[in-house]
Amino acid sequence: MNVPFDSRKLNGLLTEAGISLMLINTRHNVRYLLGGYFYHFHALSSRMGLSQYLPLLGIPRDRLSESFYVGRAEERGQIDAEGCIWITDFVEALRGTTTAALGAVDAIKRRGLQSATIGVEMPFLPADVFMALTTELPHAHFTDITPIMDKLRAIKSEEELTIIRRVYSHTAEAIQAAFRASRQGETTREIASRVELELTRRNVSFLFALVCAGPGFLRAPSSARWEKGQILHIDAGGNERDLIADICRMGCIGEPPKLAKELYDACIEVQNYVRSLIQPGASCRKLIEEGAAAAHRYAFSDYARFVIHGIGMVPYEQPIFTGGSAQLLEKGMVLSIETDFLHPGVGHVKIEDAVAVTESGCEGLGDLGREWQIVD
Amino acid sequence: MNVPFDSRKLNGLLTEAGISLMLINTRHNVRYLLGGYFYHFHALSSRMGLSQYLPLLGIPRDRLSESFYVGRAEERGQIDAEGCIWITDFVEALRGTTTAALGAVDAIKRRGLQSATIGVEMPFLPADVFMALTTELPHAHFTDITPIMDKLRAIKSEEELTIIRRVYSHTAEAIQAAFRASRQGETTREIASRVELELTRRNVSFLFALVCAGPGFLRAPSSARWEKGQILHIDAGGNERDLIADICRMGCIGEPPKLAKELYDACIEVQNYVRSLIQPGASCRKLIEEGAAAAHRYAFSDYARFVIHGIGMVPYEQPIFTGGSAQLLEKGMVLSIETDFLHPGVGHVKIEDAVAVTESGCEGLGDLGREWQIVD
Repeated sequence: MNVPFDSRKLNGLLTEAGISLMLINTRHNVRYLLGGYFYHFHALSSRMGLSQYLPLLGIPRDRLSESFYVGRAEERGQIDAEGCIWITDFVEALRGTTTAALGAVDAIKRRGLQSATIGVEMPFLPADVFMALTTELPHAHFTDITPIMDKLRAIKSEEELTIIRRVYSHTAEAIQAAFRASRQGETTREIASRVELELTRRNVSFLFALVCAGPGFLRAPSSARWEKGQILHIDAGGNERDLIADICRMGCIGEPPKLAKELYDACIEVQNYVRSLIQPGASCRKLIEEGAAAAHRYAFSDYARFVIHGIGMVPYEQPIFTGGSAQLLEKGMVLSIETDFLHPGVGHVKIEDAVAVTESGCEGLGDLGREWQIVD
Repeated sequence: MNVPFDSRKLNGLLTEAGISLMLINTRHNVRYLLGGYFYHFHALSSRMGLSQYLPLLGIPRDRLSESFYVGRAEERGQIDAEGCIWITDFVEALRGTTTAALGAVDAIKRRGLQSATIGVEMPFLPADVFMALTTELPHAHFTDITPIMDKLRAIKSEEELTIIRRVYSHTAEAIQAAFRASRQGETTREIASRVELELTRRNVSFLFALVCAGPGFLRAPSSARWEKGQILHIDAGGNERDLIADICRMGCIGEPPKLAKELYDACIEVQNYVRSLIQPGASCRKLIEEGAAAAHRYAFSDYARFVIHGIGMVPYEQPIFTGGSAQLLEKGMVLSIETDFLHPGVGHVKIEDAVAVTESGCEGLGDLGREWQIVD
């Protein structure tokens, strides 16, 4: 069966966890498993009446061809037009969460899986759906599938990398365009709106814009104004097909203060040093230790923070960088690297950018605009 | 205590339902109860790591001043900057759903409510949070608060109506601007992207754009092209502070076909007739019956559909229009009215617009562009 994910890996993960069926309801994981498909009408707003729209995608272990999708009749037009769904059993459910749950229960019973161990997305599945499933399938056992989906998504496919490169490039361009159009005296709220508009122009869905005019550490868009000589960072997120870009860039109205420049140079130095260590086989534990050590070599290192995390459909997905992590990097992983200095006299100096792990090292994603963005 | 909602009505609804504490987690209801506040960083993307961001707002019946809010430490900057939160007990929780749940459990115990009847948003609360609550509070009883929030929001305040007027006007303008910039041969996907951009320009958050080039009924944005002589509808939704506008307008490349014009005139006739019946005290049952009857007086009425529903933060909220509804309209309710003809030879002709019920009748919202939008 031709599916847009690594079905052998998925079956292995399910076997290891003793799970016979997985039932997925989040937008990002539905998209991951259905080659990008999600019902467009409810992609950004699911609530309706006293409930919400809820798709349920069921995949039995080792029996891909018996997968099912519970959705609304109105989805058929889009499904036919996009032609990307590999599921043949489309179960129509009326609007609402419990109607979708009952549709899934029926599909599960038809497959003889009513006593199976079923993996559901516990931090995302609505409580009433969980209640309906446990009531209607009293002999089934339910467990959290989230860690398995996290592992399944760890290595990005070429098709995903194409989208990731694009969304990172567009996000970097949008931030640069927002800096270029900003003027002295504007509020951080106006600047955040401009980032959203510039992302939208590039067909990137806006997720957030943290805008911080220093000195001061308020990153929520507000009525705070950006004035001459002040540094400002824009830390923005966008996505395409639920693949996320998250980038932070620095600007200043006029020449940045000397100390701000030094903090900034330190950020870039740390970021570039960590990049130089990235290649398949590198230890995640060692990378975070090396990055933290590099950020703590400066006179102003009391204000330093260093973070590295996997990114893809979820911020802080695989691989995991902690002191205890035994993980090694693999080709196709995507990492977000962040160096911050929160200096009380200057403000919040930060660079965040991302790389994809390649055969022999790494490839920068959305590297545009890493230099100071100077507004006259 | 000065709160942005009708606390007397809320206490009455909670008393009637025997609920001692409500625990709210949805973005729209958090905003409703906190005067617009929601943590901006997670407003459009809550997932992170193996879980998601989850705020929990607890309001004990008749004890407003003992309300609590479980959020992340990072929210403090925004809360201070916006100054709109009336809650004094801010409970910090680490990232994730179950950590938020445990924060709420602790706050509930401190108030002696561990055996109370607690209203939660069952179609929205994550299953793991529900499990944590039922495990940690074994003597509490849980029930769905969704119908109570629905009733609480039924009458819009003057402040809400100001936002609703603005978001409807902006959405109508965005649709008109999208029509004006569209050209023969463009795809419905390109037109939908333009609607999103025009909404964003006006600081309206894009929710959806159904774009249908007729003949044919595919409303999902696709590679279908809009050609000369074809009608097209744009049915778009946007929101501001989670107050939703939902509008449908018609256009044509060149002069619309004669039958399309007749179908369109019928839509407007039905819509205007229904509007003429709207005033405080009017019966919801009678309105839907009258609208349906009006839409079925034409030679082409086999293709007719008439819908009327409450709208505000949720599509299909109060008041309820069904054959069995005994509800009467009240000043401050907002209604969305839809007349469609799905004609196989012409396409999907549809007008949707909204009114607010006033003292003596109704006020149109976002009425711009109800005439044919002709593209040369």
